[in-house]
Amino acid sequence: MKKTVITVSREYGSGGRLIAKKLADELGIGYYDGELLSLVAKESGYTEEFVRRNDQKKTQSLLYHLYIGSQILPASDMIFIAQSRVIKDLYNKESCVIVGRCADYVLRGFPDVVNVFVTAPLESRIVRVRDEYGETAEKGDFRSHIMKKDKNRIAYYNYFADDAWGKVQTYDISVNSDIGIEKSADLIAQYIKEKCGE
Amino acid sequence: MKKTVITVSREYGSGGRLIAKKLADELGIGYYDGELLSLVAKESGYTEEFVRRNDQKKTQSLLYHLYIGSQILPASDMIFIAQSRVIKDLYNKESCVIVGRCADYVLRGFPDVVNVFVTAPLESRIVRVRDEYGETAEKGDFRSHIMKKDKNRIAYYNYFADDAWGKVQTYDISVNSDIGIEKSADLIAQYIKEKCGE
Repeated sequence: MKKTVITVSREYGSGGRLIAKKLADELGIGYYDGELLSLVAKESGYTEEFVRRNDQKKTQSLLYHLYIGSQILPASDMIFIAQSRVIKDLYNKESCVIVGRCADYVLRGFPDVVNVFVTAPLESRIVRVRDEYGETAEKGDFRSHIMKKDKNRIAYYNYFADDAWGKVQTYDISVNSDIGIEKSADLIAQYIKEKCGE
Repeated sequence: MKKTVITVSREYGSGGRLIAKKLADELGIGYYDGELLSLVAKESGYTEEFVRRNDQKKTQSLLYHLYIGSQILPASDMIFIAQSRVIKDLYNKESCVIVGRCADYVLRGFPDVVNVFVTAPLESRIVRVRDEYGETAEKGDFRSHIMKKDKNRIAYYNYFADDAWGKVQTYDISVNSDIGIEKSADLIAQYIKEKCGE
């Protein structure tokens, strides 16, 4: 397969991260999710703990920063810039799978990028988050718990990417993971092999 | 394969219709695109020619109808209602592929429905529309020609479906058809077989 970077975006609880990992294993290429953060820390000079705390967080509104009279860019913005540089460096260096972090936006217009989106019905996501991830939700309300997580993802994307999250045209392939994690990964791998050669 | 209705939505010039046809052939099930219109004519009592003329057209605004003092539903709305009935009848009767016509919306919440979306980059769509479909565009501006067609589709969907067109979560699988018509159809067929059994 020629050098290819695969970005994976996903609804919370869809198993998109598991699919991304399987995809990387199946294609024998690197996998970057939390792994990205130590590279971002190196690039930005922030500590890894600080980067982790601000990971995929939307910056407070511009109004807030004007109000507090800040002269420098807020940490989340600085981290996003460093992260974008890390993503572009990875693109130049190796084939890999990158989960989230607006990577599809950062690499927009670059050749040899395949953008993937993983969806799943809310009911399936509730079961996965509760029974597989073992998470807890306030008052057992997993519906709100999941929707809040999605809302944060959407806010992060809409803030940093100059585009709306989840437009079908952004992605080369999207899959509803209800066919299973393994089968979803297989199908996406097949698409990538068709697109980028064996 | 158990009884399944496959809806295919697509960007103009993406080859979605060709993929839908191949998919129906590959799965050995019915295919409804223009074919739907004679059924709609029968259901509505309008002539087939009249149905064809109003096919997938958005109704004028409510304000316009208030202005002209119309007491009955406009033709496009009547046709949409008849069409929805035809789509639900098909769902009850047979496995088939239905192209466009908000079928994903009409059948929302029904089990045994697979929603497909076909995308393609604008450059590929220009080549297909010009060289394969043999269409002409005003002043040779295929970009505007295609964007106008998409705009009409979006307006039709947004008017009749109580939702925005092209949200990735609406679809079970979406594919960028740049891997080829045949290969896209194969991949989607594979997804459907995984989801609905061989």
